[in-house]
Amino acid sequence: MLSNPRSDRVRAVRRLAGRSARQRAGLFLAEGPQAVREALPAGAVQDLYATEQATDRYPEIVDAARVAGVPVRLCTDEVIAEMADTVTPQGLVAVCRPVDVPLKRVLDARPRLVAVLAAVRDPGNAGTVLRAADAAGADAVVLTTESVDVYNPKCVRSTAGSLFHLSVVTGVPLAEATSRLREAGCAVLAADGAGELDLDDLQDQSDAGHGPLAGPVAWVFGNEAWGLPEQDRALADASVRVPVHGRAESLNLATAATVCLYAAARAHRRA
Amino acid sequence: MLSNPRSDRVRAVRRLAGRSARQRAGLFLAEGPQAVREALPAGAVQDLYATEQATDRYPEIVDAARVAGVPVRLCTDEVIAEMADTVTPQGLVAVCRPVDVPLKRVLDARPRLVAVLAAVRDPGNAGTVLRAADAAGADAVVLTTESVDVYNPKCVRSTAGSLFHLSVVTGVPLAEATSRLREAGCAVLAADGAGELDLDDLQDQSDAGHGPLAGPVAWVFGNEAWGLPEQDRALADASVRVPVHGRAESLNLATAATVCLYAAARAHRRA
Repeated sequence: MLSNPRSDRVRAVRRLAGRSARQRAGLFLAEGPQAVREALPAGAVQDLYATEQATDRYPEIVDAARVAGVPVRLCTDEVIAEMADTVTPQGLVAVCRPVDVPLKRVLDARPRLVAVLAAVRDPGNAGTVLRAADAAGADAVVLTTESVDVYNPKCVRSTAGSLFHLSVVTGVPLAEATSRLREAGCAVLAADGAGELDLDDLQDQSDAGHGPLAGPVAWVFGNEAWGLPEQDRALADASVRVPVHGRAESLNLATAATVCLYAAARAHRRA
Repeated sequence: MLSNPRSDRVRAVRRLAGRSARQRAGLFLAEGPQAVREALPAGAVQDLYATEQATDRYPEIVDAARVAGVPVRLCTDEVIAEMADTVTPQGLVAVCRPVDVPLKRVLDARPRLVAVLAAVRDPGNAGTVLRAADAAGADAVVLTTESVDVYNPKCVRSTAGSLFHLSVVTGVPLAEATSRLREAGCAVLAADGAGELDLDDLQDQSDAGHGPLAGPVAWVFGNEAWGLPEQDRALADASVRVPVHGRAESLNLATAATVCLYAAARAHRRA
């Protein structure tokens, strides 16, 4: 039973909330039952820390860890609280190995729907888009070099387990991501409030069996505050605006991404 | 020039961050240029507080206030910082009169698209859904008695000005909202992860010119954590699930609401 919240081991886990420690250790944190439940079958968990209460409450998680050969270490409440980034990790903290894959592996699988996050900086936004991409049935999410670290605890939490479902690619320059996705057969569409094409028109086209949404699509989403600079937009085949019907000035990133990804998903299903 | 951050006036403004003070005073806060810019033409602003720098930076806002007969009071940075709920109100805080309208006024205008927030408790979620409803062209948003106060500063901020665009109704019990919306000609649809109907199927129907999305729709969205209890779901004509194509367990509230509202908006446009 780990009981000293100031021990070296506890401090080492706690430090994984910071990017430099994550990079040095090549590890990250998944906190709470939802994240741990998804991380285990993905083979991502190296060590699982749990309070006695959590092992009673989530026996299926402890069993899954044991079956997978993951050491389960009992901790006091104080130790878990010290390790976790969240206020209430519900007694479970997993130290995980990165789950991202090379872009090549995504391309070799001939993806039909990909979300590219270009310079998305807020971890909550990145995680929410990743979760929406999973729900829309995307094959992969690519985070460019300028985007937030996908293993930031707040990002991991916002994905609600989706981080462990679809293929995640990190650290690719946007120009490389767009050109290689295009070579792999994707239409590369930049979501942009001032885009030249209207998403509604693209949906009409795909309903009629043609247009970019009818085939494989890679959506590029820009920064939450400043969107996509001109040189980034130019890397796409076209820029597409989500129609704003009311008087809203704009959509937030996650809302726009949701509409774009679901539009493509529906077009693919009808195709 | 207001310079004493501990004056009665400054304290009175600051207290509007709290619900009980808002209800006693019948006033609320809109902070920052985006919110103030939208609040002014809506006739909501009673007093505008601004730093000298803000009056230089946003002359069009100060002009609009003067034209509308709204007193503009110069303040030091310390005073604005003390008044505001946000860390960076960019030198502008407006004290506003409520903008909500009676449900009857919404119904009399024969709404085509309405979002009903049933027991949505997080102010950021409520504001984000309100902004998405505005973008989708909804006529109104109804917050039931059990939902968060729409004038909570975080909610106001999350609407990004949309609070002042569409009709907002507050404090109506869910059962009353659903029955009166139905009487006014709306199909009342509950968004629910385990809904009996698939949104995609409803879209196929409306593409063929029939089904509930082809006519006026009121979407009911439940609490972010527990969704809609059975008795609330039963108040709707049908419950509808947003398709989850990947392995995501569920959608978050704002994501699901966005997909539902945009699906109805597109159906209406094609009708």
